[in-house]
Amino acid sequence: MLQDLILDQEEEDLYENTTKRDTSIELEKILYKKIKVLDHGFIRVIDYMGSDSAIVQAARVSYGHGTKKVSQDKALINYLVKHRHTSPLEMCEIKFHIKLPIFIARQWIRHRTANVNEYSARYSVLDKEFYLPEREILCAQSSSNKQGRHNEPLTKEETDKILHIIKTDSERCYDNYSQMLNTDIDGNVVDDEKTGLARELARMNLNLNYYTQWYWKIDLHNLLHFISLRYAQHAQYEIREYAKILLEIIKLWLPHVYEAFMEYRHHGAELSKSQIQALKKFVDVNKISKKESGLKEREWQYLIDILS
Amino acid sequence: MLQDLILDQEEEDLYENTTKRDTSIELEKILYKKIKVLDHGFIRVIDYMGSDSAIVQAARVSYGHGTKKVSQDKALINYLVKHRHTSPLEMCEIKFHIKLPIFIARQWIRHRTANVNEYSARYSVLDKEFYLPEREILCAQSSSNKQGRHNEPLTKEETDKILHIIKTDSERCYDNYSQMLNTDIDGNVVDDEKTGLARELARMNLNLNYYTQWYWKIDLHNLLHFISLRYAQHAQYEIREYAKILLEIIKLWLPHVYEAFMEYRHHGAELSKSQIQALKKFVDVNKISKKESGLKEREWQYLIDILS
Amino acid sequence: MLQDLILDQEEEDLYENTTKRDTSIELEKILYKKIKVLDHGFIRVIDYMGSDSAIVQAARVSYGHGTKKVSQDKALINYLVKHRHTSPLEMCEIKFHIKLPIFIARQWIRHRTANVNEYSARYSVLDKEFYLPEREILCAQSSSNKQGRHNEPLTKEETDKILHIIKTDSERCYDNYSQMLNTDIDGNVVDDEKTGLARELARMNLNLNYYTQWYWKIDLHNLLHFISLRYAQHAQYEIREYAKILLEIIKLWLPHVYEAFMEYRHHGAELSKSQIQALKKFVDVNKISKKESGLKEREWQYLIDILS
Amino acid sequence: MLQDLILDQEEEDLYENTTKRDTSIELEKILYKKIKVLDHGFIRVIDYMGSDSAIVQAARVSYGHGTKKVSQDKALINYLVKHRHTSPLEMCEIKFHIKLPIFIARQWIRHRTANVNEYSARYSVLDKEFYLPEREILCAQSSSNKQGRHNEPLTKEETDKILHIIKTDSERCYDNYSQMLNTDIDGNVVDDEKTGLARELARMNLNLNYYTQWYWKIDLHNLLHFISLRYAQHAQYEIREYAKILLEIIKLWLPHVYEAFMEYRHHGAELSKSQIQALKKFVDVNKISKKESGLKEREWQYLIDILS
Repeated sequence: MLQDLILDQEEEDLYENTTKRDTSIELEKILYKKIKVLDHGFIRVIDYMGSDSAIVQAARVSYGHGTKKVSQDKALINYLVKHRHTSPLEMCEIKFHIKLPIFIARQWIRHRTANVNEYSARYSVLDKEFYLPEREILCAQSSSNKQGRHNEPLTKEETDKILHIIKTDSERCYDNYSQMLNTDIDGNVVDDEKTGLARELARMNLNLNYYTQWYWKIDLHNLLHFISLRYAQHAQYEIREYAKILLEIIKLWLPHVYEAFMEYRHHGAELSKSQIQALKKFVDVNKISKKESGLKEREWQYLIDILS
Repeated sequence: MLQDLILDQEEEDLYENTTKRDTSIELEKILYKKIKVLDHGFIRVIDYMGSDSAIVQAARVSYGHGTKKVSQDKALINYLVKHRHTSPLEMCEIKFHIKLPIFIARQWIRHRTANVNEYSARYSVLDKEFYLPEREILCAQSSSNKQGRHNEPLTKEETDKILHIIKTDSERCYDNYSQMLNTDIDGNVVDDEKTGLARELARMNLNLNYYTQWYWKIDLHNLLHFISLRYAQHAQYEIREYAKILLEIIKLWLPHVYEAFMEYRHHGAELSKSQIQALKKFVDVNKISKKESGLKEREWQYLIDILS
Repeated sequence: MLQDLILDQEEEDLYENTTKRDTSIELEKILYKKIKVLDHGFIRVIDYMGSDSAIVQAARVSYGHGTKKVSQDKALINYLVKHRHTSPLEMCEIKFHIKLPIFIARQWIRHRTANVNEYSARYSVLDKEFYLPEREILCAQSSSNKQGRHNEPLTKEETDKILHIIKTDSERCYDNYSQMLNTDIDGNVVDDEKTGLARELARMNLNLNYYTQWYWKIDLHNLLHFISLRYAQHAQYEIREYAKILLEIIKLWLPHVYEAFMEYRHHGAELSKSQIQALKKFVDVNKISKKESGLKEREWQYLIDILS
Repeated sequence: MLQDLILDQEEEDLYENTTKRDTSIELEKILYKKIKVLDHGFIRVIDYMGSDSAIVQAARVSYGHGTKKVSQDKALINYLVKHRHTSPLEMCEIKFHIKLPIFIARQWIRHRTANVNEYSARYSVLDKEFYLPEREILCAQSSSNKQGRHNEPLTKEETDKILHIIKTDSERCYDNYSQMLNTDIDGNVVDDEKTGLARELARMNLNLNYYTQWYWKIDLHNLLHFISLRYAQHAQYEIREYAKILLEIIKLWLPHVYEAFMEYRHHGAELSKSQIQALKKFVDVNKISKKESGLKEREWQYLIDILS
């Protein structure tokens, strides 16, 4: 899927180095390539550290001889993800170059446990690139979900009007930004008679849909946490599009972690005490069987325990 | 329960101040008092910031006019805890003075998002206080749980022997520590002819059951995370004893948060995709009713959703 | 100084509580009051934990009997700040309610070690309040400092034009925001025939000078770090205005820390190895005297050490 | 220097992979090799991410076109380190396997911004390896420095006695640890008739000089901070030995960062306001010259500014 989203780009002149480090053949294939997100955004993997087996290796430092019997790597990763033993997952690290609209960047940056270098509009002029949503995602406010939108798009007429507004306002604000800076789109002075406003001030005229970009480096535990929140149903469509790509990248990089994440996090569920009590009324533990459940011993035992 | 554990102590000469800050009448009653844990340990609340209503207030800054309808504070706190909306919980902060054995301090400090000032054995001489377990918790290694112990104590004979070993070794090591320092128990020089080893070196002769102490300051979200891990069934008995007291303190301080924590975290459960699939085989959603479940609308709907 | 900046406001109906906690009489006077910053912004202290003496108390837990001789609180605080012994400073915590333009909020949030609840434009409609700079701070781009501005304002003509642009674009974008939402300024539906765009999308049409607000909670060490970076000469004028107020608040709250910060951080300097070597050429240590220097023993000794 | 400290070891069967990632030829040479520290400790680089040029690359994302003129990588790194622009440094990450005495591990772990997997004595039996200091570093308590030791070792007689104490107590405590566990040194049950105490309890009988080990992963900014505190003059000898090796590793990995760190941090100095005022009395800025100083323009200007 990622392959289809890779943006055409001039080939960078990349050296092939030899290394003794853990290396992911699959991730190397897309290293440095821009994967398209939204209309002008992208995600690009710049560097990475670790692998499924690096997680296992770190976990075994902790457990020492005690884990001799937990011989299978995949089972150990399932165990770690299931029980939220997060420190071995922190032993993997990944660095991205990401381009995204400012209003999404503002949600994104709330995840504090990461390293960031953002393009600075104090130093440099922002490019004329703004986010203009696809027609079909322009939906009304949801009445049930205070922070969300309906699944149904607006009428064609309303959509036309909204797209016109966003496009026109974005363009006008940028043109005025350029005019205040007294520079053209390449940053060259337009009128030698004028001085131009400082960049750190002029930028305030831009809209929240303008694109910014940053380097973002994060460990695997925090990345999975980001994805679990931002790929969730209630997350805003625009950031879900980024989270979806991040998850695909994990699938390439760490196939065991990806499977465990889908099993225990993404498709898992949390029940409250009251919900468990309700369930007990509906399930007669004496009438169900481990065999029928299809579960492994531990998973089965846990289920029986909470239902008893 | 906490009242019974308060250690006799000379009354500190405390001023009563007036403040406009959020104040917890219940927590004020035990402020600065030492609550006994294990044989020589204690937990003492030194300061705190916030209340149930401070959490609500912070959440409403986020949600603005949009939360007009979520009128009940308790319902909002349930919502926040259930959905792991952690940032309003971070708006409460608490500071403890804690005395604990070093081997427990080493587990404890792995929780990184907290502020700590520990007694320094480079600056000062440690007191002669070491942890000697109660007889009934001296159990054998669990064979099923690699990191735990059996529920049954050892034989009286073995227990006697072990207690003798720990007591004798602890005392001898401390006496040799004093001798190397050339100081008595009050830190006074014993033999004027000798110099005494530097404290930063002498301390290495002490055992891991010696008590240390620290100031520990943490926000509520991270404190709940600590408790959820360290009050869990698989946590080591000794740290559970501390976590139990911390939870009792939360009950005094933030009764709504306490209830939500017990409902959604402590007595809740996480199910994997496979476990949900197994459940579906055992529950016929058409034969169960919301009324019978005793659940509120949203909780009921969620249950139906995952079982459908 | 802060008193003059307090915004007129309806008196909140505040209870006066009694507490045994550390209380700052000076800080209590301005608690909950809005201190004006820029044209529509403010800083408001919501809660605080600790005092100068709480820092000393925490430091003495670490140093134990070893600090008997460091008898003076003020000297100990100087020592901690000078030597960057940051952990006792982390024992103080403060919580603010802050209103600020979005482009400043984006700089601010880069300080990660803090707790934040921001007004969410997914849940609620933003108010029509945008930052319009004072004439005298509308300066040209600095040519020597890539990220800064000149000290001289632009010509009156250019200033007029720029203010007109910012004001007009801000207003138009807001009006279109309202129109897309199909709500008036109070959030009421305007046209019952229309649905209105979801808030999470409509917000993208706003400019970066629109005001947002948040609760921001931080420990003293990280707050001083924030101030040292954002009150520095090269910081952007707008964020300096906030940092200036934060520093005034510390002055009220923790007078000893304030003095130490000014002495060792704000008015201090860092020299490189090369700069120290240059200094040595210009200073003959044999010709200078401690008495003439006016320094205390330790400070003098340090100076002699680096110059020798 | 590092080459001489590499411990003889069976060659691990390492694959050479090809990668497009930044690769440090010098660091690859010592990857996975154990570098000896103290008597039984070591540091081993397990993985790394980034290079001098990765820092430059990340910085240029921030500065955009604005840095065209800062053309030299080395000058940019100097600038970043000097002005504590830490975020580009955070773009490098390194992972170590470290073996160290527990009392040093307790100092070490106070650096919170790192990822750790420690050998767990709940899961596994600790090896019989304890730290026994070299004779020449067994010094008396310093009288001037509350937390340090004299530079002069103790007398031969006292040293003999202390080494005897530490060795004897360590051995006895370990033997009793084994006896309580009812296992031999390889973890095999000794007496089938007995059960043995749980590992999580037995470990409390060990001394603080026993060796533990962990995986430790940290970004470059935080690693430099660690080194600046732990390689400082007042740091405890034992942790300085580790910090010294970490600094040597940085020298191999990131030569430009190493030079900047030595120039601006390690051999730099911080002056207080009072010290600057004292300096002004001793230096006549009119009598000194930039040429004589040997400083570059910016460094010279800064010096003149603080002395004027």
